[in-house]
Amino acid sequence: MSHPNVPSLRVNGARLRHSLEEMARIGATPRGGVSRPALSDADRQGRDLFARWMAEAGLQVRFDDVGNQYGRRKGRREDLAPAMIGSHLDSIPQGGRFDGAYGVLAALEVARVLNDSNVVTQRPIEIVSWTNEEGARFQPSCLGSGVVAGAYELDYAYARADYAGKKFGDELRRIGYLGDRAARPGTTDTYLELHIEQGPVLEAEGLQIGVVDGIVGIYWGTVEVTGQAQHAGPTPMAHRRDPMVAAARIIARLRDIARAADGATVTVGRLDAEPAIINAIPGRVRFTLDIRHPDGATVARLRAAMADAAVAIAREERCEARFEDTWNVAETRFSPEAMAAVEAGARAFGYSFRRITAGAAHDAKYMSHLCRTGMIFVPSKDGKSHCEEEESSWEELERGCNVLLHATLRFAGLQ
Amino acid sequence: MSHPNVPSLRVNGARLRHSLEEMARIGATPRGGVSRPALSDADRQGRDLFARWMAEAGLQVRFDDVGNQYGRRKGRREDLAPAMIGSHLDSIPQGGRFDGAYGVLAALEVARVLNDSNVVTQRPIEIVSWTNEEGARFQPSCLGSGVVAGAYELDYAYARADYAGKKFGDELRRIGYLGDRAARPGTTDTYLELHIEQGPVLEAEGLQIGVVDGIVGIYWGTVEVTGQAQHAGPTPMAHRRDPMVAAARIIARLRDIARAADGATVTVGRLDAEPAIINAIPGRVRFTLDIRHPDGATVARLRAAMADAAVAIAREERCEARFEDTWNVAETRFSPEAMAAVEAGARAFGYSFRRITAGAAHDAKYMSHLCRTGMIFVPSKDGKSHCEEEESSWEELERGCNVLLHATLRFAGLQ
Repeated sequence: MSHPNVPSLRVNGARLRHSLEEMARIGATPRGGVSRPALSDADRQGRDLFARWMAEAGLQVRFDDVGNQYGRRKGRREDLAPAMIGSHLDSIPQGGRFDGAYGVLAALEVARVLNDSNVVTQRPIEIVSWTNEEGARFQPSCLGSGVVAGAYELDYAYARADYAGKKFGDELRRIGYLGDRAARPGTTDTYLELHIEQGPVLEAEGLQIGVVDGIVGIYWGTVEVTGQAQHAGPTPMAHRRDPMVAAARIIARLRDIARAADGATVTVGRLDAEPAIINAIPGRVRFTLDIRHPDGATVARLRAAMADAAVAIAREERCEARFEDTWNVAETRFSPEAMAAVEAGARAFGYSFRRITAGAAHDAKYMSHLCRTGMIFVPSKDGKSHCEEEESSWEELERGCNVLLHATLRFAGLQ
Repeated sequence: MSHPNVPSLRVNGARLRHSLEEMARIGATPRGGVSRPALSDADRQGRDLFARWMAEAGLQVRFDDVGNQYGRRKGRREDLAPAMIGSHLDSIPQGGRFDGAYGVLAALEVARVLNDSNVVTQRPIEIVSWTNEEGARFQPSCLGSGVVAGAYELDYAYARADYAGKKFGDELRRIGYLGDRAARPGTTDTYLELHIEQGPVLEAEGLQIGVVDGIVGIYWGTVEVTGQAQHAGPTPMAHRRDPMVAAARIIARLRDIARAADGATVTVGRLDAEPAIINAIPGRVRFTLDIRHPDGATVARLRAAMADAAVAIAREERCEARFEDTWNVAETRFSPEAMAAVEAGARAFGYSFRRITAGAAHDAKYMSHLCRTGMIFVPSKDGKSHCEEEESSWEELERGCNVLLHATLRFAGLQ
């Protein structure tokens, strides 16, 4: 059995690319993206392919009662807790082909390249694809890892419904991925997740690897602005209580508030008026609100300032504004040992890197409740993600996978 | 046969009220309004009831190839063109119970009261309920009268689709109101439409009757703002091309532009983002635009100024704004003879009145292309309309119907 020096062990970039391209055919969209919402038929096809590849790589394949898929590569010491690596295969509608799938198939590539060289690690390595990371079909996001981490009850997960009223539990059974609770991972030693950055920072700074130090705190809510529905024509401007105008002024103001707080983001992704017709002043307007900052206390301060501004603007328009808080998570701080392992991997291959805070939730958030956890980012072209134009170069994807390999071996142990 | 003096002939207010209340049960909403969108099942029920009432009043009942319903009360001189009166029975979703239905059932009340007193007019009287006046389900509005007036081709009307993709022609057939072209009215001598004001002017001035001198010019369009869809989290504020923020700033600015032009209104009733999820910056936002002014040239000037402002704001946000013009109608000026007939009616009963310009489109707009046309308004409580709280007192509704009766007899002729 050979024990190559770690820096000489490298992933097979062509094989990684081939796997990503094959997976991207499932749910492929005309503009180069994928639509593979959680527990859809496309998700099932993606799962089937991944399970087959894991089995072909000699991994012990299983899935648990939330549908999370696992493949275990035995270690020399099966009594030790495994080093886990992975991400998710589901996508938003019209999403990109690398968001999630990259981390899953890179984990598979790590197992494959270890097989190629007949490497036996001390600890077992588990590769994982988590169910419903996106939260696009079933809210909340990161449901599979959240159940495993004890953040959500199983019954709560099963009862989540999509916009058409279909239940998570029913859909999981329908696609054939309702497994046993016993399949959940036991004690896990470490978790590493490789992902595209989904933002512009690495590209803008010309860097190759992001050493993720944590995940921003996130607030989700709905802002409801109530005015008076009236006919568009015969109601003079001075007589109006128009919640659309109030909402428009509020949205513009929220952006200004976020801009004034370094590192903060605020996003209004959806707006619904009632009755939503061209010739009526709406009686009510509701819009979504997403606030993020690396420091959870700042998120809370921003939410309060935004609510004050919304109420004040609504009053000027003789309307009322109300915040409904729907989700609020504190920031995550990743393990210093995980960051050190990722940095060591980047140094070993001579890749440039920087520390960076993830702006989006990832399954690593919940895994950080259970074990030493870290993430690795590679650059996203133009910072685009959650869209079909999402892109990273094959070289960048290969580099990230090399770092994952190196850090995984550091955790799993070669001797 | 008795020939009572006109001022002694009055409508039966209790019967009018009863008819309005019965019609308001069809599509009734919990908050006292009605949802009776054009060619819906509720619209069919309303039509069936109206047809039954017309038949019971001895009228010759028919409907044409756009679904407009007519009831003809014979005159002494059947060779003369009829005096037509009516309005529409469709409503917006969650609309009010008097918008349209009042004018239709007041016309029916005119026929009934003439029956009560065995009055035979010189000209025939035709009462009418026009199809799809609101334009809420199928755009454009006033489709039934527009086809009759030659403003729209029949095939164009049939091809209009609602938001669910259902076609006007298919839905008309489905509810059983696809009639014959031969049922359309021939030459019509006059057209009078009684309607609630849908605005605050009469109530604010304590007046009982509005003598409508015309209808404002109206522009309808869609403003499309294009940016870049990106993930909400990892995209710093400075890197965004966010069409929601651009649209919000544009909507606020359009309101300011309208405020600066005396008598103008601008309304944004609906806004749709893509992909419309909480955690993505939209790639595109589209919103409706409704601009009105008594002078059509001012409408055109406002549209141009608003388009300039939208393009400039979008550019500041590194987005693009584009106006799609969907409907543009010049102002309407009603017949001086119709206004004189309405004023004479108001004077005969001792009602206070003023001239007023309608802020909304009505079927009277298209009928004015065909014959001498006028409208009568009664006050709307708080100026509310296109909402469930729409209200006018039964006394006001009775007064308006008396004026309609008087003006109709003046046109139809008693001897």
